[in-house]
Amino acid sequence: MKNTPHIIYGKHAALAALANPIRKIKRVLVTKNTKEELGEKPFLGVKNLLLTEPKKLDDMLPREAVHQGIAIECDPLPQPSLQSWLEAGHNKPVLLLDQVSDPHNVGAILRSGAAFDIGAIIATDRNAPSESGVMAKTASGALEIVPLISVGNLVQAIELLKKNGYWVYGLDGEAKQTINEIKMDKKSALVLGAEGRGLRRLTGEHCDILMRLPISEKMESLNVSNAAAIALYELYRKNS
Amino acid sequence: MKNTPHIIYGKHAALAALANPIRKIKRVLVTKNTKEELGEKPFLGVKNLLLTEPKKLDDMLPREAVHQGIAIECDPLPQPSLQSWLEAGHNKPVLLLDQVSDPHNVGAILRSGAAFDIGAIIATDRNAPSESGVMAKTASGALEIVPLISVGNLVQAIELLKKNGYWVYGLDGEAKQTINEIKMDKKSALVLGAEGRGLRRLTGEHCDILMRLPISEKMESLNVSNAAAIALYELYRKNS
Repeated sequence: MKNTPHIIYGKHAALAALANPIRKIKRVLVTKNTKEELGEKPFLGVKNLLLTEPKKLDDMLPREAVHQGIAIECDPLPQPSLQSWLEAGHNKPVLLLDQVSDPHNVGAILRSGAAFDIGAIIATDRNAPSESGVMAKTASGALEIVPLISVGNLVQAIELLKKNGYWVYGLDGEAKQTINEIKMDKKSALVLGAEGRGLRRLTGEHCDILMRLPISEKMESLNVSNAAAIALYELYRKNS
Repeated sequence: MKNTPHIIYGKHAALAALANPIRKIKRVLVTKNTKEELGEKPFLGVKNLLLTEPKKLDDMLPREAVHQGIAIECDPLPQPSLQSWLEAGHNKPVLLLDQVSDPHNVGAILRSGAAFDIGAIIATDRNAPSESGVMAKTASGALEIVPLISVGNLVQAIELLKKNGYWVYGLDGEAKQTINEIKMDKKSALVLGAEGRGLRRLTGEHCDILMRLPISEKMESLNVSNAAAIALYELYRKNS
């Protein structure tokens, strides 16, 4: 994943970025109305705060960006390596993404991941989107909560998780067992493939168990962020 | 919901539209490559089939549209009224949308609805998107499977469902009970509000039971299509 500065926009995403002490902020652009609405507190300690017009934000952002009057120029968050994350003694569930490339989907998955309190999302450094404004907006603040760990090789990441006591569950539309039939404890790693293609063969072969969502024959698959939300919910439900 | 012709694009959505005998098709535009890939069968009986260039499809569709070499000019599907749908003796679960306005979300919800075999999606004729290319693309064929019923008043629709033996469950982040604690039989109506605003007060008051998804305090809510997917999964799981 690339490490270039980018712009976080939208109230939820921006407030979460401002509240994150790790986030390196270069400049905050905010309209008068949005600043009044949000109050002083979120902006305390911000060095480079500029009042601006909505039109200027329109011009600096992609056409479809709903900025709600605020944009933050910042660096991507520093992220741990999988090795160092594991060494810190985490034992929450993790989610691995096998070439899920749409930043909207990755953002929505981050949001569901934070909502169901997972420990990290792991994706390959190639064929996965790097942190971006679109991802931050869709994540609605979750980018500041859930580590997004980049790995060179997903199979090696799976093996490292196994060595550290994780059971690895791959979601695969062709699997015999459905997710509701399978026991999963908290130290679980869920692996999701891209829509259409699904898990790559080698990825699937390294999972401990393959399972599918119990969907009707009328549909081939779900949207990948919806599939992730259901899997995370099921994991949460089984451990609460 | 408006009744103007529109364009369905993308392979999944287009193949489903071509296979739907109810769908009134005006014209099919397809590139040579995509036609070869899809074969003769989907195009049998199509009267107005035109070979075209990818560039022409780019020009006739929104900038971000991933058309995959096929576009179909068609009328929106005729949809039943809630009354006539009920009179036909259906007893599958239904989903009501309270001012969910983003066509991507409605499309993704249609897709999950078809995957978990619901009977219909019900939305108000105002403050809800009408059938469109974006919705059809995100629905990935589900628009041809799940009726999208338009009603003038959501509260009246809830009351009509109750009279017909449905129990009505509203998703509300402030509810005391979580969805996993609640029994739901097949004849259930799930009601979802827009992101942020949630259910309108009056809508909530007419539900039999309010329930929430069991999410962490770290996040305020889920993306509405992800929330719908989880609720539909839970309903399916409880009745299988």
